[in-house]
Amino acid sequence: MRDKPTNLPASQPGGEPLKPFTQAVLERRATSQFTPDEVPEETLNAILQLGLQAPSGYNLQPWRFIVVREEENRKRLQAAAFNQAKVGQAPVVIIAVGMKEEWKQTADEVFREGAERGAGSLDTVEQYKQGAIQFVSSMPPDVWVNRHTMIAFTTLMYAAEVYGFDTAPMEGFNAAAVKSEFGLPDEAEVVALLAIGRAEPPDKAYPGRFPLERVVYSERFGEAWKSNDK
Amino acid sequence: MRDKPTNLPASQPGGEPLKPFTQAVLERRATSQFTPDEVPEETLNAILQLGLQAPSGYNLQPWRFIVVREEENRKRLQAAAFNQAKVGQAPVVIIAVGMKEEWKQTADEVFREGAERGAGSLDTVEQYKQGAIQFVSSMPPDVWVNRHTMIAFTTLMYAAEVYGFDTAPMEGFNAAAVKSEFGLPDEAEVVALLAIGRAEPPDKAYPGRFPLERVVYSERFGEAWKSNDK
Repeated sequence: MRDKPTNLPASQPGGEPLKPFTQAVLERRATSQFTPDEVPEETLNAILQLGLQAPSGYNLQPWRFIVVREEENRKRLQAAAFNQAKVGQAPVVIIAVGMKEEWKQTADEVFREGAERGAGSLDTVEQYKQGAIQFVSSMPPDVWVNRHTMIAFTTLMYAAEVYGFDTAPMEGFNAAAVKSEFGLPDEAEVVALLAIGRAEPPDKAYPGRFPLERVVYSERFGEAWKSNDK
Repeated sequence: MRDKPTNLPASQPGGEPLKPFTQAVLERRATSQFTPDEVPEETLNAILQLGLQAPSGYNLQPWRFIVVREEENRKRLQAAAFNQAKVGQAPVVIIAVGMKEEWKQTADEVFREGAERGAGSLDTVEQYKQGAIQFVSSMPPDVWVNRHTMIAFTTLMYAAEVYGFDTAPMEGFNAAAVKSEFGLPDEAEVVALLAIGRAEPPDKAYPGRFPLERVVYSERFGEAWKSNDK
């Protein structure tokens, strides 16, 4: 296990300050066309480092990320993603993967090192591990890895946005084709794709969102959210 | 559909500036004990508004959020969540729900209003809807709603953190008990719980993360990420 990163760049590659999170959330659009501008290595490293700080149940981190930058590989990925042009255009496309089995092998290391760092007790690592395996195994493995991988995926997406880049999250792909083209093992679940780069204007129009009172409930399902404050 | 929120508070309730995203990601810990301090209504509204800005496939927004604040209800939720004390302690606990069927009913409205706002064409709404239904129906419904709900869930989590609050994401609950206690319909999938409040010190120790080169690959699964820049 590794400590938190301490050397993240404090500004965008051009020197502008990082975008506040609220601005990143409000300005983010799913980008449909990208320019060929690269994502600098230092920034891409920062985005990845931030993504890996996401929380996961028992800290099991069942996610893996394949960073695709070579043009030939982006074209292969595009072919496996219903030929969406943005996959071939964006300078960086990340394949987010969830591992349904590997965590059982790494749990011992995760819990032992966690205990050494003060999170848990070394005496109860084996017991804790058995409890974790029993609990996680009670959930459908594809649901469990999707749930977790999306936390890290969403973190990557906002990290790219605060560093001033544009993103496109995608769920349109042929998972079997992605697996065979990029060497994924059987247990791997292809969860989503994230393109990162610079948007070629214009942005897509904002399609709106359901109002708060339709999708947020107070205390009980179906009880529309009411706030004194709106 | 509704426009983007324009009135989000620009600072934490105490007047401090919002936390930069990078700081929120690095400082965030899964909080195990909460103080009774409330989350002010204005801040909670902002957190919810930001969460609803998350992207979803076809903008279908298959997520719903039940905000549980009344003590009696938090205790009932605690009982359905393996009696985790933080569920009863935190002033706000959000039940994140994914709807496996309802999007088929609301797709028409989503696409029609999206087209009116310039995202797509009104002439092809029906065709677009049929394509969306066919594509989304090709995925396991529980996987699909978990994937999407977690984008909004993660957005809520970071929104709470940048407004200076502490959070605890949780996957430990008895879904059937949560559904019956909080009136969820059959098609609803309980995805995760998010407690929001103020942490009672001390924070849990940071258990570390897998290093970049173990969970990030270059171009192909298993090819350890190498950067010129590290």
